[in-house]
Amino acid sequence: MSAYDLQVTTVADSPLVRAARRKSVPHTPVWFMRQAGRSLPEYKRVREGIAMLDSCMRPDLVTEITLQPVRRHGVDAAIFFSDIVVPLKAVGVDLDIVPGVGPVIAEPVRTRADVERIPELTPDAVSYVTEAVRLLVAELGPTPLIGFAGAPFTLASYLVEGGPSKNHEKTKALMHGDPELWDALCARLAQISGTFLRVQAQAGAAVVQLFDSWVGALQRRDYVRFALPHSTAALAAVADLDVPRIHFGVGTGELLPLMGTAGADVVGVDYRVELGDAIERLGPEYAVQGNLDPALLFAPWEALAARVEDIVTAGRAAGGHIFNLGHGVLPTTDPGVLTRVVEHVHEISQRE
Amino acid sequence: MSAYDLQVTTVADSPLVRAARRKSVPHTPVWFMRQAGRSLPEYKRVREGIAMLDSCMRPDLVTEITLQPVRRHGVDAAIFFSDIVVPLKAVGVDLDIVPGVGPVIAEPVRTRADVERIPELTPDAVSYVTEAVRLLVAELGPTPLIGFAGAPFTLASYLVEGGPSKNHEKTKALMHGDPELWDALCARLAQISGTFLRVQAQAGAAVVQLFDSWVGALQRRDYVRFALPHSTAALAAVADLDVPRIHFGVGTGELLPLMGTAGADVVGVDYRVELGDAIERLGPEYAVQGNLDPALLFAPWEALAARVEDIVTAGRAAGGHIFNLGHGVLPTTDPGVLTRVVEHVHEISQRE
Repeated sequence: MSAYDLQVTTVADSPLVRAARRKSVPHTPVWFMRQAGRSLPEYKRVREGIAMLDSCMRPDLVTEITLQPVRRHGVDAAIFFSDIVVPLKAVGVDLDIVPGVGPVIAEPVRTRADVERIPELTPDAVSYVTEAVRLLVAELGPTPLIGFAGAPFTLASYLVEGGPSKNHEKTKALMHGDPELWDALCARLAQISGTFLRVQAQAGAAVVQLFDSWVGALQRRDYVRFALPHSTAALAAVADLDVPRIHFGVGTGELLPLMGTAGADVVGVDYRVELGDAIERLGPEYAVQGNLDPALLFAPWEALAARVEDIVTAGRAAGGHIFNLGHGVLPTTDPGVLTRVVEHVHEISQRE
Repeated sequence: MSAYDLQVTTVADSPLVRAARRKSVPHTPVWFMRQAGRSLPEYKRVREGIAMLDSCMRPDLVTEITLQPVRRHGVDAAIFFSDIVVPLKAVGVDLDIVPGVGPVIAEPVRTRADVERIPELTPDAVSYVTEAVRLLVAELGPTPLIGFAGAPFTLASYLVEGGPSKNHEKTKALMHGDPELWDALCARLAQISGTFLRVQAQAGAAVVQLFDSWVGALQRRDYVRFALPHSTAALAAVADLDVPRIHFGVGTGELLPLMGTAGADVVGVDYRVELGDAIERLGPEYAVQGNLDPALLFAPWEALAARVEDIVTAGRAAGGHIFNLGHGVLPTTDPGVLTRVVEHVHEISQRE
């Protein structure tokens, strides 16, 4: 433990929160998207026989799963264990998370009546989230908890397609064919996502992340017209709270500066874009998060370590840098490699 | 038929070949990636009961399938009906194309011995390709035939992963873990792809396209080190022939100018990048091809027509523009919409 670590007694002083606010840090903070999950044997043990959505509604289990990677890897943040469709389930959308497939929606959304049938989210409907966040914050001490939600475009794609989609053709046909209906759907989803973020932040999450997983499927002009206003509305739901906001999507090389303008403090960078380029495109107003290719975790250590070093070095050009992957941890990842990456990032970023 | 059309008596005078060479054209030429295939009922009829790979080895069937979209849509080019794994099958790799999955490799490539077991491609091994191209060229008259091959990176990913892969982790682990073995594998694949292109060009294909479908999964530096040299070698195999070379990949916003340097006359642009941006990034030395989002074909005509017009307009800033999709035709596409797009592109690009 370094002299600095001894001084970190509050979440606000933590490297992650400081980096998100573009303040000086003792070392580059690091966490991994999907750090809580199938790469960990202890996760598989506690999930055995429990369906994904059920596990998200049990505060004891959510707490245990969220803490597992913090204990094991020594990451600089916990990410709340949940799924982006949990708030949809909470408002009554008939859906399930099917292993090996993803979220499957019983009745896809296609008409105005379908949209009107989706209620707003109230904090009461996710009281198990409030409870789990409180338990976690008590356990985590000065380690920040990151709350999260899915962005309206990505949620809308699941709802319209009926499940995961490669080409989003029904979603795009709807957005271009009936922009008003699209906006009505996304406005409702922004309310739901915004409330989900707010519930977590009010219960003690120190940072929030809005995931727009599929948004790389949009051309820039369509992003501006059909996605950005709704993501902005979702992030605005926590604007009055003292929580830095991270905004991440996959395949967003053409969209990065726009994603910042949605109300982000930190923009998450996909592994496809060189981090230095992303920092240039974003300018000094944003911290960045990323962006190791998760497939590189399967490469020999020397090749991996060199890439980690390059990313830490490139991150110095940003006002703040949170080390992360450029996409989620793959289930077959060796968790020992993740621990080693955390140690390496801490060590090399402390050097000077 | 316009006065100009009456003058087109040779393939070299065709709008597609002229656009590829950045010469003036009477209208913007248009074709669609995957125009021959499952969107056409006449295709489903002739393929009934015949496995994909078998159909690729029957010159009569290849000719019929290749001609179908030319007859139906009036596109400005035919694309040879085949699959990027056909030349691998031809050299003896044990693989099949499984409906709903894609190419599946019986014994994935992992070791030097595996690589050494892959023979070079000789023209004799694909005599059915030569035969089909000759039949086609005779039928097509002044309409150019585009020959194609898969780029070494994409073929290598299939071989190393054993089939289609979302994350390419085994491929990336191999390229970073044993760069020499990677280069040996890709050098062999460049010979195979290059020969496959050359066979088609020598039999009469007027243009060739190198497809690097998966290459958007690479960061720029990895593209430069691990993919570009081998794509360059594949395209060099036809450098002495008088055929313009198109180079296309998906998710290549970060890679476009590099893809040009591989030896391309035309760079195919993914739908995610605004065409005007792509033209700027590429500079005046290249013609461009693209880039309508194939999902837009599911939108109402007014929205679709407006986007088509924007693309035709943006294309005017390039030295040459071939209208195409920014990815392949989806199987559920209404073929009537494709015909209408061809007519619309021709009409609006002829206006002035």
